[in-house]
Amino acid sequence: MAAFAESEYRERIRRTKERMVAMGLDTLVVADPANMNYLTGYDGWSFYTPQCVVVALAEDDPLCIVRGMDRNGGLRTSFLPPDRVLGYPDGYVQASDRHPFDWIAADLKRRGLGRGRIGTEQDVYYFSPRAQVALERGLPDADFSDASLLVNWIRAVKSDAELAVMSEAARIAERSMAVAFAAIEPGVRQCDVAAKIYAAQIVGTEEFGGDYPAFVPLLPTGIGTSTPHLTWTDEPFAAETATILELAGCRHRYHCPMARSLYLGTPPEAIRATEGVVLEGLQAALDAARPGATCEEVEAAWRTVAARGGVTKESRIGYAVGLNYPPDWGEHTMSLRPGDRTVLEPNMTLHAILGIWRDDWGIEISECFKVAPNGAEPFCDFPRELFVKR
Amino acid sequence: MAAFAESEYRERIRRTKERMVAMGLDTLVVADPANMNYLTGYDGWSFYTPQCVVVALAEDDPLCIVRGMDRNGGLRTSFLPPDRVLGYPDGYVQASDRHPFDWIAADLKRRGLGRGRIGTEQDVYYFSPRAQVALERGLPDADFSDASLLVNWIRAVKSDAELAVMSEAARIAERSMAVAFAAIEPGVRQCDVAAKIYAAQIVGTEEFGGDYPAFVPLLPTGIGTSTPHLTWTDEPFAAETATILELAGCRHRYHCPMARSLYLGTPPEAIRATEGVVLEGLQAALDAARPGATCEEVEAAWRTVAARGGVTKESRIGYAVGLNYPPDWGEHTMSLRPGDRTVLEPNMTLHAILGIWRDDWGIEISECFKVAPNGAEPFCDFPRELFVKR
Repeated sequence: MAAFAESEYRERIRRTKERMVAMGLDTLVVADPANMNYLTGYDGWSFYTPQCVVVALAEDDPLCIVRGMDRNGGLRTSFLPPDRVLGYPDGYVQASDRHPFDWIAADLKRRGLGRGRIGTEQDVYYFSPRAQVALERGLPDADFSDASLLVNWIRAVKSDAELAVMSEAARIAERSMAVAFAAIEPGVRQCDVAAKIYAAQIVGTEEFGGDYPAFVPLLPTGIGTSTPHLTWTDEPFAAETATILELAGCRHRYHCPMARSLYLGTPPEAIRATEGVVLEGLQAALDAARPGATCEEVEAAWRTVAARGGVTKESRIGYAVGLNYPPDWGEHTMSLRPGDRTVLEPNMTLHAILGIWRDDWGIEISECFKVAPNGAEPFCDFPRELFVKR
Repeated sequence: MAAFAESEYRERIRRTKERMVAMGLDTLVVADPANMNYLTGYDGWSFYTPQCVVVALAEDDPLCIVRGMDRNGGLRTSFLPPDRVLGYPDGYVQASDRHPFDWIAADLKRRGLGRGRIGTEQDVYYFSPRAQVALERGLPDADFSDASLLVNWIRAVKSDAELAVMSEAARIAERSMAVAFAAIEPGVRQCDVAAKIYAAQIVGTEEFGGDYPAFVPLLPTGIGTSTPHLTWTDEPFAAETATILELAGCRHRYHCPMARSLYLGTPPEAIRATEGVVLEGLQAALDAARPGATCEEVEAAWRTVAARGGVTKESRIGYAVGLNYPPDWGEHTMSLRPGDRTVLEPNMTLHAILGIWRDDWGIEISECFKVAPNGAEPFCDFPRELFVKR
């Protein structure tokens, strides 16, 4: 069963077709698994083999095309009728002489969808250059356009049902962060803490379980805090070191991420000073995140505080967040950074993350929020500070 | 610190350059994170933004090019000297008007690597059509070839050091499967079992911790066993149903996967009969997996047993396995199926997985093994049967 009511998917498809008309597309081939899920409900760990959802102006329902063995998964999790879920033969998987998109192109041609203008997502994880070439060769009568982010932009504003699911994810994020703080002690192996965090993320609450987040829990410690994306090791946590925790709760593939930092011992003055700037700057950014503000204005609110506090940060301070699959919970649309003039709308959801990484230390504090009339409304209720354990 | 000795990486690079010469390549751009790790040791959850390792015949050491904030991660985990680890500016990340591979192309050009024949991996997860176009536009004096799987094929035969790491992964897989069997009971939520499996995978053993496997634990149950790649829900396990477990132990990104099936109650005759055929056919395939045999001969050994037992299976029965990142632990080189004439060599590592999926039930039993003189040597020591809990 799909996670939302069929009417929710139908509305998403209607808006997708609206944008297709505006872009002059007859057919849209969606290979991003988050977009496939968004349009049909299909949810499985099958994106390691090529697959797609096809939306055609000429047809009411999309097609969901997956590897043959995954067709039953499509029937069970999407709202689509059985004749709109197709499985390609297994011999196309990881073969040197053929590609699943050869089969998909031939199928689209048979359906009369091989003409006109076809949009493909040309900058997503699970649609390769060879997939694009296979479609172009198999459909020589069609013209192709890059339709990357067409569906992602529709995802930017969340419905009430989506916001409810993200609130559930927030409950899981809070519990998981509390578990992490309780577990980290000098002498405890990093992997043992990661295991406890993961278990908390997936157990969820008594009322609802957790889905797998699109990132593994990140818990860089000591000099590891100088960079954000290293994963855990077997080494123990040490006294008088900082640890950064970045993790999410996930529910029906919707994420609520949270970053916090922890110090075992007495934090050095440099970290404390940066913490103060980060907290003030984060609050300034959250206050600025009102409908009508641009992404770069939100970032500027942080930047003003940071400049006053002598803190520099080259990288963006946030991004759209919500529905996604590994390896990213971001939605790849707007970023909170100079030059991004996207205008915020009510019920857009973002992750504002102040990550400061120096040569041998770092700190991160973040909030996942929805855009509301008076500024950002964070999903989580969790103390916003550098945690200290002595 | 990289997971292996520098000499191991140097040998991998030497063999890569050998194949580049044979293919007529001057430069190779490797964007598959497993191949990046294989050649340099670099290991981080940073593959959600474009990155690559560049091997040039004209240069001794590869370049590792990542997002700026991940450069410290490259310094900490690869064997490369600091001047061979580059970080591109954050403004290139998920921007509409520029692409990280624009920056990478410009950098390669400055180094004199923008001429001759450049190989790119045109059918991997993390190298998009737009990345390919960015390289082609930025390096108009170069010719491009598809070098997909060039490095993957070198990975096929494992060194002693790699086999040792896969044996550690096997210990984790055995423990995780035992935890799963102990946890599954009627009335227990699927998510609670998934959480226990995940924790076991990451805790590892007292001697060594676990790395994150490239798949989440898969535990389809009841009618869910009719398809392999659905993930857990909040629903409880029910009496008189089957559950399939597919999971891996992972160590330094090397996987040892295992699939088993469990029945809560008294298994129906159809499942028991299929179990018998699967066990006999799996053993026949393992016995056939000797150096000199082809992949299709191994599959034929299964097929003979299956035909006699009246069991049909369209999909491949196995694939190369080892080092990888989400979303797949397979290496995308050889498959155990008709038409694959790859000749097995000693110390190749594969996952033979007999998955049978019918309309409303299924069963899976597998072994991860290395090719040895007398046939397959499984990494795991775990009873090979349909488990029954009453």
